[in-house]
Amino acid sequence: MDKVSAHKSIQELHEKVEKDDMTNVNERFEAMDGVRCPYCEKGVRCNICSNGPCRLIEGKTERGVCGIDKDGMVMRNILRINSMGTAAYTYHANTAAKTLKETGKGNTLFEITDEEKLKKLADRIGLDTTLNNDELAIKLGDFLLEEINRDSDEPSEVILEFASESRKETWEELGILPGGPLHELMDVKTSVMTNVDSDYESMALKTLRMGLATSYGSLTLLEEIQDILFGTAKPHKAEVDTGILDPEYVNILPNGHEPFIGAALIQIARREEIQEKAKKAGAKGVRIIGSIETGQELLQRFETDDVFVGLTGNWINQEYILATGAVDAFAADMNCTVPTAGKYAERYNSLIVPVTKLVNVPGVEHKINYKPEKAEEQALEIVDMAIENFKDRKDEPTNVPEYKQEITTGFSPKALLDALGGSLDPLLENIKNGNIKGIVALVSCTTLKNGPHDKNTINVAEELIKRDILVLSAGCGNAALQVGGLTTLDAQEKAGEGLKEVCEALKIPPVLSFGTCTDTGRILNLVTDVAEALDVDPTELPVAVTAPEYMEQKATIAAIAAIGYGLYTHVSPTPPVTGSDNVVKLLTQDIESLTGGKLAVGDEPEEIVDGIVSHIEEKREGLGL
Amino acid sequence: MDKVSAHKSIQELHEKVEKDDMTNVNERFEAMDGVRCPYCEKGVRCNICSNGPCRLIEGKTERGVCGIDKDGMVMRNILRINSMGTAAYTYHANTAAKTLKETGKGNTLFEITDEEKLKKLADRIGLDTTLNNDELAIKLGDFLLEEINRDSDEPSEVILEFASESRKETWEELGILPGGPLHELMDVKTSVMTNVDSDYESMALKTLRMGLATSYGSLTLLEEIQDILFGTAKPHKAEVDTGILDPEYVNILPNGHEPFIGAALIQIARREEIQEKAKKAGAKGVRIIGSIETGQELLQRFETDDVFVGLTGNWINQEYILATGAVDAFAADMNCTVPTAGKYAERYNSLIVPVTKLVNVPGVEHKINYKPEKAEEQALEIVDMAIENFKDRKDEPTNVPEYKQEITTGFSPKALLDALGGSLDPLLENIKNGNIKGIVALVSCTTLKNGPHDKNTINVAEELIKRDILVLSAGCGNAALQVGGLTTLDAQEKAGEGLKEVCEALKIPPVLSFGTCTDTGRILNLVTDVAEALDVDPTELPVAVTAPEYMEQKATIAAIAAIGYGLYTHVSPTPPVTGSDNVVKLLTQDIESLTGGKLAVGDEPEEIVDGIVSHIEEKREGLGL
Repeated sequence: MDKVSAHKSIQELHEKVEKDDMTNVNERFEAMDGVRCPYCEKGVRCNICSNGPCRLIEGKTERGVCGIDKDGMVMRNILRINSMGTAAYTYHANTAAKTLKETGKGNTLFEITDEEKLKKLADRIGLDTTLNNDELAIKLGDFLLEEINRDSDEPSEVILEFASESRKETWEELGILPGGPLHELMDVKTSVMTNVDSDYESMALKTLRMGLATSYGSLTLLEEIQDILFGTAKPHKAEVDTGILDPEYVNILPNGHEPFIGAALIQIARREEIQEKAKKAGAKGVRIIGSIETGQELLQRFETDDVFVGLTGNWINQEYILATGAVDAFAADMNCTVPTAGKYAERYNSLIVPVTKLVNVPGVEHKINYKPEKAEEQALEIVDMAIENFKDRKDEPTNVPEYKQEITTGFSPKALLDALGGSLDPLLENIKNGNIKGIVALVSCTTLKNGPHDKNTINVAEELIKRDILVLSAGCGNAALQVGGLTTLDAQEKAGEGLKEVCEALKIPPVLSFGTCTDTGRILNLVTDVAEALDVDPTELPVAVTAPEYMEQKATIAAIAAIGYGLYTHVSPTPPVTGSDNVVKLLTQDIESLTGGKLAVGDEPEEIVDGIVSHIEEKREGLGL
Repeated sequence: MDKVSAHKSIQELHEKVEKDDMTNVNERFEAMDGVRCPYCEKGVRCNICSNGPCRLIEGKTERGVCGIDKDGMVMRNILRINSMGTAAYTYHANTAAKTLKETGKGNTLFEITDEEKLKKLADRIGLDTTLNNDELAIKLGDFLLEEINRDSDEPSEVILEFASESRKETWEELGILPGGPLHELMDVKTSVMTNVDSDYESMALKTLRMGLATSYGSLTLLEEIQDILFGTAKPHKAEVDTGILDPEYVNILPNGHEPFIGAALIQIARREEIQEKAKKAGAKGVRIIGSIETGQELLQRFETDDVFVGLTGNWINQEYILATGAVDAFAADMNCTVPTAGKYAERYNSLIVPVTKLVNVPGVEHKINYKPEKAEEQALEIVDMAIENFKDRKDEPTNVPEYKQEITTGFSPKALLDALGGSLDPLLENIKNGNIKGIVALVSCTTLKNGPHDKNTINVAEELIKRDILVLSAGCGNAALQVGGLTTLDAQEKAGEGLKEVCEALKIPPVLSFGTCTDTGRILNLVTDVAEALDVDPTELPVAVTAPEYMEQKATIAAIAAIGYGLYTHVSPTPPVTGSDNVVKLLTQDIESLTGGKLAVGDEPEEIVDGIVSHIEEKREGLGL
């Protein structure tokens, strides 16, 4: 069962669904053994035009019918994949901006929670701060919408404000200082057509440019707006894993990446009359349980209580969590919701309710399209559907593995600063004296490609902290480390001597639960702040990024953004680029002389961390540490 | 050699490049025989996430690792391909809007050429028509930019204005009345990520929606703006095929789909001092020769003379045209420029000059990024580069097959109306009396997948006119018919008795050269006008669309738009959908009950036209004809 997941809860549920003869992600992964196409794996296949499909075989078909060579084909395929990530992050940003605006207009059930952040941000981007909060919220929303729709011939205003001068100069020289994310997406999507851009170097620059547009144009303000609406994260304790599900409650799982409906659900469910309604249906009450990244966004910002009780885990969990039979409504926002969710809901007495027009899975009957001004009625509708579902399922069997793990979460940049006593100095001091060798942002998904669910992520994080490297965790990989027990004070024991000493002194875990994959923009801004405090270029810092289990297209564009920004960026498994030595060389070596960043690959924890440590040592040396 | 191309010129040049041992599109196509992947051909493969690559095999791997079934996988792959087309058309529209605005501001070398159209359009979309032309141009440009960037939750203003009430109702009911094209693109690109939309019916509706957003939001105003800037097409004669290239001139080929730099080049090259400059370099002068769709856009609107001499042909020509050794500059805008263009330029003494940041091919040294306000200096730069190239190549051998074909082109909707004496009545009368059975828009690319270059397109058009169906031709397929001799009065001989009679009376060819693939929006508007004149729903008309040689991603989204609009739409070769019986059934049958349109496949001319005729007969019957 170790082959399935790092977590006992999921191992047990896997046994259950196997017994029930349900298709499941592990079984499907195994079935694909021996079926996988080697051309797809290397990135040297294409079927976008009617002259194809083409495969490139050395000595036989060295070019596609159109004439594209293997370098161009590999890079183009990667660029096509990355473009989806830009779209998804920008969709989220667009929703956040509209939600903030409608909140400013008084049309939602949300409030301006972090006034200070709103004012500071408004001031920073040059808004008239004598306006009241509501007016400022509307203006800030408009500013983000303008940024999202900005022409690619005009420079991103967010980058002009948030990036360091040295970085902007580099990007300008390379021609990768982007405009707004949507127009960059349009440029890229046009460039990857048949017979448009077939030069791999040119396409590599385009993907870097789109990465920067995404990180700054979409992500930076999006997360700040979520702070303004729902409060900026502060470190606090909570619980994760399947054991937080109590079948005797009406259980609603907001799932995805966008916390809007989830936040509305928490607010609604905390109303006395809603709890009463559930009790009348025979339940102990209504509970909101975070699932994957929406859960993570909520868990950062909302204290848990008897209504909002924590987080189940990350995306590979989904089929298994539904198989507990204890989920009444699975409120699915933008991504991810597995295609089999409807099948599982039917078998295990649950209900899938997409809450955005983007999501659909076969078998879904009722869809909700989130609109900020309708958030309250939409949340109420979901609660009612969940209560109805509970009535139908309350006498059916459930199977909830009783594992729970305590975590500490909420280490936003501000919280981090607070934990350090209000200044970066203690951290910098410990980096200088070598107690902390460096800092690594572990921003990852979860995949089965390089081993059991979450195993590689946990192993890499353990290896990093053992070698005195502080880990900031984000994304589905954050849940891996939370459920895996690395975001608690107890985990200090697994850290090297230096890091352990610092963690004990500051009373922090060695893995700081930072947030979601949507927080990549903030991670870059944090690095920028540290660099400015030290008066160096960000690329000179002893920092790196790792994605030990990347899965999808938001992860790849985030990795590209980090490389474009100038960071050493490890990803595993190896993306489909090995069909072109030139692309591999460009991404893993040559690019360093352009942006300062580069891609590292490798699937074994020790090897991964060796690479990171040697990069960090080099940077320490460069700084004279 | 018949296996290569329908055109003798290209057959001869193919022999030449084979002798020269140059890689070429026909050779590469043949090499792919036996190499093609059956999973790619059927659309049942995916490698967008790290759990893949996946292939679906009946009885073995019925779902991807994520859980997606074959219906979802096939439809998702199609949707991903279509999204590129939306991006490309919207990029073009964005450029047109910016060009019009800068022209209104007096910052370009262009002028408001069709004032009447500007005023009429301004009035139609509700602008203040007391403004002067320049102010109106700016406002119209802004209107299009707003449409392009419109949120997908707000309905397209262009659709509200240009579509018929009955169509809008249908689209509203189906949830496919779209917003702006860029936000629809963002929604779709997010939906096709791993674990977002896995329901094929839902994705089918999304692709229809994106198709309508493209046709209306991007295409309708874009072509009108090009008319305003460069003049609305009027029927006139011109020449096509390789024989128009005279090696003793400095030959500049604007190639692609966007006519802006091409129009600037014509304007500049007509200046006496420019011709003198070329003569000083030993040339007889400078000539501008249209290539593929940019050539088609120019040829519609600019009369030919000793400076602007015509059009070479469509995209498969490119390597062969470069191999003439008589091309001094190949000014490559948005699409298509084949990846081997740089290789050919090097071998045959030419120069590839991308004129947009989107285009690149290996080996290119100098790039120009078109900006409206710089069009004049950029065109001058290209002329200078071409003259320099001429100096280097003038003593080198050239190989220009001396084939020329006379054509009549420029049948814009207005020109068509003028040709009919100012009213649709003569056309409608001839449809009613059966002289004309129906009208088919042949909007196609060119491909090798279903036979030699342009062969299928010519055969299908001949079969259509033989059966008394009037053909409006657009796209690369239009060039196929021009070079193939079907857009002349002589071609009346190939028409059936009824159609021949009408063509003789009106003095028009049986194939009316309508424009480019970018004209799809106008074709739909023309159908709308005809339907309104008859007071019926557009789906009741005896009309259809065929793409006998579709190649790329703009073609597929245009086909989708036509199906969404409600038209019978034939495409060949069959797109990669056969891996899902459900998708095939949906697109070829069930969708008719939703939008009124449907997809037809089939590669044989008689079979294709049988299908079209039987559809047209059914519609005639429905109208009581």
